[in-house]
Amino acid sequence: MTKDVKGGICAAKGFLANGLNAGIKNNVKKDMAIVYSEKPCRAAATFTTNVVKAAPVKYDYELVHNSDFIQAVVVNSGVANACTGKQGMDYCKEMSDAAGNVLGIPSEAVLVASTGVIGKQLPMDIITAGIKELPKDMAGDEAHATLAAEAIMTTDTKSKQVAVTIDIDGVPVTVGGMCKGSGMIHPNMCTMLCFITTDCAINKKLLQKSLSLSIDETFNMISVDGDTSTNDTVILLANGMAGNKEIVEEDDNYKKFFEAVYYINQELSKMIAGDGEGCTCLFEVQIKGAATKEDAKKMAKSVVMSSLTKAAIYGHDANWGRILCAMGYSGAQFDPETVDIYFESEAGKLQIVEQSTATDYSEEKATEILSKEHVIAICNCNNGDFEATAYGCDLTHEYVNINADYRS
Amino acid sequence: MTKDVKGGICAAKGFLANGLNAGIKNNVKKDMAIVYSEKPCRAAATFTTNVVKAAPVKYDYELVHNSDFIQAVVVNSGVANACTGKQGMDYCKEMSDAAGNVLGIPSEAVLVASTGVIGKQLPMDIITAGIKELPKDMAGDEAHATLAAEAIMTTDTKSKQVAVTIDIDGVPVTVGGMCKGSGMIHPNMCTMLCFITTDCAINKKLLQKSLSLSIDETFNMISVDGDTSTNDTVILLANGMAGNKEIVEEDDNYKKFFEAVYYINQELSKMIAGDGEGCTCLFEVQIKGAATKEDAKKMAKSVVMSSLTKAAIYGHDANWGRILCAMGYSGAQFDPETVDIYFESEAGKLQIVEQSTATDYSEEKATEILSKEHVIAICNCNNGDFEATAYGCDLTHEYVNINADYRS
Repeated sequence: MTKDVKGGICAAKGFLANGLNAGIKNNVKKDMAIVYSEKPCRAAATFTTNVVKAAPVKYDYELVHNSDFIQAVVVNSGVANACTGKQGMDYCKEMSDAAGNVLGIPSEAVLVASTGVIGKQLPMDIITAGIKELPKDMAGDEAHATLAAEAIMTTDTKSKQVAVTIDIDGVPVTVGGMCKGSGMIHPNMCTMLCFITTDCAINKKLLQKSLSLSIDETFNMISVDGDTSTNDTVILLANGMAGNKEIVEEDDNYKKFFEAVYYINQELSKMIAGDGEGCTCLFEVQIKGAATKEDAKKMAKSVVMSSLTKAAIYGHDANWGRILCAMGYSGAQFDPETVDIYFESEAGKLQIVEQSTATDYSEEKATEILSKEHVIAICNCNNGDFEATAYGCDLTHEYVNINADYRS
Repeated sequence: MTKDVKGGICAAKGFLANGLNAGIKNNVKKDMAIVYSEKPCRAAATFTTNVVKAAPVKYDYELVHNSDFIQAVVVNSGVANACTGKQGMDYCKEMSDAAGNVLGIPSEAVLVASTGVIGKQLPMDIITAGIKELPKDMAGDEAHATLAAEAIMTTDTKSKQVAVTIDIDGVPVTVGGMCKGSGMIHPNMCTMLCFITTDCAINKKLLQKSLSLSIDETFNMISVDGDTSTNDTVILLANGMAGNKEIVEEDDNYKKFFEAVYYINQELSKMIAGDGEGCTCLFEVQIKGAATKEDAKKMAKSVVMSSLTKAAIYGHDANWGRILCAMGYSGAQFDPETVDIYFESEAGKLQIVEQSTATDYSEEKATEILSKEHVIAICNCNNGDFEATAYGCDLTHEYVNINADYRS
């Protein structure tokens, strides 16, 4: 797997993109994006588990399951088109119709996605004008991939893109992606907007399987604030233009492809966690030595979601009691007397707790380790062979600032 | 039920209390308290559900279940005696022994409780000196009840006390209580330290039942930050000194007593939620029209715990989308298209959402309602006959301040 591939959503053959300011948010920030494939794609997707589903989630669900192929995705930021009733559903169809029309493809081949404020109707005159404008300057280069990645941002501070190349029987196959997400991020399904493209030839069943399985250990293991959005969507499009022999069974080629998709999801997840609203660091929690995989996951998520732990990490305070406490109320079973805890970052690794009681560690060294941009807590239950990792961030004043008046 | 009774933990006949600065935190703040009954008490208790249980929780569990009677409780704040291994357990016994010695009662009749930093050993020389000092000035008046209520505070900004009197066959019976709790408060069992005293004559089984049932809808329905502490404890002591005929079955007298205990727990719960770390308001969430009681509880808790909703309340922002979203990921089933949402406070009541879409409400009026010290969100699912109420608070800069460097 070659990991330093550029071009994000446009890295795979035959994918074009664009992003621009249509005027949804204001007259400056980019707020609409398009991803288009020169050839029709097989599509896989996963959506939010929230009972309250935004209109585009319900709309795309139908299309992904019923359309023979997908060829484009139109995205807007600023307004989520969630809690918008029948009007919101009609607007999804209008977006697909408008894009199908200007691209010369069936409207059933156009997915839509929205992110932003809940409860407001889309400004459809602005949106349709944007849809007419977007294809004029589409291109398959790095610059245009970045325009698209920037246009889907809301409170994100950085655009998020990644791509890799793998070798399938001597044929180079590329997988690339972009995503957005910063608030309302929680381990339950996909938790943000994510678009992945590949030129791999693979059947629909295995395409969906590679996505669903990898999401379980990547996007479902991140948490910024414990809130699961109404709009969470991950879409994976495969146009087959790499020219590899189609993957139709779970052979070594499928495994390579799965690993590529897994890597893309993992990297994008870490980018989201590390860009959590107002955060100053990526906080990684590794649980080791758990009795079951499920217990390991529960504990990792519980620690990464604990407000008290997150505030302590922000304060560079080695408050391991809060970590042990969060493991304790996770619902997982473990021996509370045999836990070892370490903190690690580029500044080094330090054992803070041995057999559930404090070691004679240096507070100064602990603070130094906790002051870096990527902080890892390693908790060994010494209770079994299972591990899990969760990603989150610290809880800061800026998180409160951002969310106390998001709509203003 | 007479609700404006003064005296808190000392309101019931025969209970004495005291609180003082022993020097655990510093040389100014009170940090040790005692509650003593002139006659031996029947005892009931509930404890944290956290797998990681502090030493005093394990110690008291044994005593409450195995001792014939309890006559005193000694409490310290500043150090939680949690994650302290065998040493921590030994210190609990030392505290009971010291108190039993100075009070002239068996050490098996003395419960202990601790709250504060996790992972540090108790400073036993200071603690035992405090235990010798506490009984010297014990008294059964309002002033001494307040000294005790103040001595158990950590990040609390106000002491929390309440008492009521009921009439059992013409005999006045009193129930009073005090509690502390502000951070690490979450709906799961008792979530803080709470001590309740009564002069009611009642058998042990019904005493425990009245406590366990009332806690399920009071302390288990509050949330400050989603973290369930290692030390959560509610203790209820009954010395029978009111002279009523002992309550031994679930008759009308039991019902009266249950309602009194319920009221005490509800009021103390609301005081804790309204004094959440750094908060500016008590945030109450009422779910109505749910299909089951369990669904109503899940939704109420989910909304009251949502960081995004809590930050919006802090910003006086009527962001109902976040409320509907939090109901949606609660795990409860409901029709996402038929929800009505209202905001209410002393400034009035306003319908914000009808049938899951925004009404044409005044943002100005909404902001006025949300600016008060007690804000209520009322969410009607129009889906059934069940209701539940949860209590929490807003998420503020001050919460982050307090928890970023609690140990320093």
